[in-house]
Amino acid sequence: MTTRRLPATMPAVLFDGRLKFIDAHPVPQTPPGWALIRTLAAGICRTDLEIIDGYMGFSGILGHEFVGIVAACDQADWIGRQVTGEINAACGQCRLCRQGLGRHCPERSVLGILNLDGCMAGYCRLPISNLHPIPAGLHPDRAVFIEPFSAACEILDQVHLEGTEKIAVLGDGRLGILCAWVLASVAENVTLVGRHREKLEVARWRSLETTTRLADAAGSDLVVEATGGPRGMQAAMAVCRPRGTIVLKSTLASQGELNLAPLVINEITVIGSRCGLFAAGITRLQQFPDMPLERLITARYPLERAPEAFAQARASQALKILLETR
Amino acid sequence: MTTRRLPATMPAVLFDGRLKFIDAHPVPQTPPGWALIRTLAAGICRTDLEIIDGYMGFSGILGHEFVGIVAACDQADWIGRQVTGEINAACGQCRLCRQGLGRHCPERSVLGILNLDGCMAGYCRLPISNLHPIPAGLHPDRAVFIEPFSAACEILDQVHLEGTEKIAVLGDGRLGILCAWVLASVAENVTLVGRHREKLEVARWRSLETTTRLADAAGSDLVVEATGGPRGMQAAMAVCRPRGTIVLKSTLASQGELNLAPLVINEITVIGSRCGLFAAGITRLQQFPDMPLERLITARYPLERAPEAFAQARASQALKILLETR
Repeated sequence: MTTRRLPATMPAVLFDGRLKFIDAHPVPQTPPGWALIRTLAAGICRTDLEIIDGYMGFSGILGHEFVGIVAACDQADWIGRQVTGEINAACGQCRLCRQGLGRHCPERSVLGILNLDGCMAGYCRLPISNLHPIPAGLHPDRAVFIEPFSAACEILDQVHLEGTEKIAVLGDGRLGILCAWVLASVAENVTLVGRHREKLEVARWRSLETTTRLADAAGSDLVVEATGGPRGMQAAMAVCRPRGTIVLKSTLASQGELNLAPLVINEITVIGSRCGLFAAGITRLQQFPDMPLERLITARYPLERAPEAFAQARASQALKILLETR
Repeated sequence: MTTRRLPATMPAVLFDGRLKFIDAHPVPQTPPGWALIRTLAAGICRTDLEIIDGYMGFSGILGHEFVGIVAACDQADWIGRQVTGEINAACGQCRLCRQGLGRHCPERSVLGILNLDGCMAGYCRLPISNLHPIPAGLHPDRAVFIEPFSAACEILDQVHLEGTEKIAVLGDGRLGILCAWVLASVAENVTLVGRHREKLEVARWRSLETTTRLADAAGSDLVVEATGGPRGMQAAMAVCRPRGTIVLKSTLASQGELNLAPLVINEITVIGSRCGLFAAGITRLQQFPDMPLERLITARYPLERAPEAFAQARASQALKILLETR
């Protein structure tokens, strides 16, 4: 293992039933085939907020969106490179892994979500095979979006689009806006439905329409549910046309009362959609240099002010909040 | 309009907030292009029970599964023929109708379900274009299943099957068993999961496996949710493999608390599935004369004993209960 001189401890944002900043947490060991990455910036995602509300029962270091620099690993040419990383650490052996679906491996751990400490710390670790170098010319303020942007691109992998469909994205949060931009990059008739005029203003890009009226989305061929709220699925079913498709992006700790009868009556298809492949995301990011990702950054906090940053991330006006280690 | 001498009144099973048998209800008028059908037998479906529980807010004559004889219509060659009929009366003009999706026409009425009196009466009416003659040699005890059997066949229209998939059907009620039989007619590895040993015994046919243990269905490529119960969707999500498919057949007045996060995490596709085209159902029924539909008939009641018949249809042991007018 090629290593540099590494500190024994690091700052870290921990959740163990309560969110806390720890000044001196042990720097993790990296097994063979894994890399230790010094985090530069990490994004707060709605999933992080859901985890704090009990989703996944996770405890440990939070965070799965990051840009960092490889600090140690047994393949020397990675050391010092600016990278981000796929968040699912898979077994590589099972049927799903062999099909290229390692992100569904039943043995997987998931960065900051499932049995693997996350990136809101001085350092985090991932299998080397998960790493993606940040292409030259891709600013870290854009690169830090590669994870959620790739998750948005996953829709294009799951639904075949002609480009002429009537498409609605519900939810003007960070993921909703990213999904709307990705869809507007391949289709002409895309509407983002939200409740916050300022966020809808931020979301304007190319031909994307924005509205606060759900009724404008009535009869949509494709509806992306990215509200992150318990009423989102009901709203999606209300505006999806018969035999249309709903892509479900929100993961919630609880959805409350829900009646799926409209799915049966209207023979709607619902597709659960989670992580996407970073290669596709990075390629698309480079194809659309005018996509205004930087606009989504509401604020930046140093790691030690994480509790404050999380509080702001929950506020209805916030889009992306970054934690930085520099 | 060609008519025979028709009575002015008929017996009918009505729901108007309460289920009741009416001795002398007016025989309906048939507009041009519609047929008046003398009902011979009608099946009680779970949807009828759900309607009584408040589903669809329907009030009127119940029933949408039937075999009957055309008594009056303006195309003389139909008179006297034994028929069944598609239950959605569509406008025939809109985009969905022009795509052959009249069963999703927004202007449709639905026999015994939406703005159209049903078949649990001396007579019912439907557009002539909805009628299907019962083929010679198809016994009425089999023909009365054409509606729910076609609804089961709808799965084959919505999901492309290789025949080698691991398939599970959840629910050993009438619709679950029909779905299991339809799937076992095209695939080798089909398991019906139920809670009633006697019903599972009735369901045995060809290579179909039956079990009371949900765990036997773990890792299924395709799961059909036909339990009609509020826990069915949760069970389906638990046994569907990542990137697998759930076909949702149950329409419930209420589903209660439901968390759809597993759909997102495992990127599962859910397909709502309701009515099927009768032509496909009738063809498949004739292809499999050994499919033991008659075994599903638990009891027969004359129309005037409908309340008793409905009570038995709710009992956990019941499969298909028929109402007969002869």
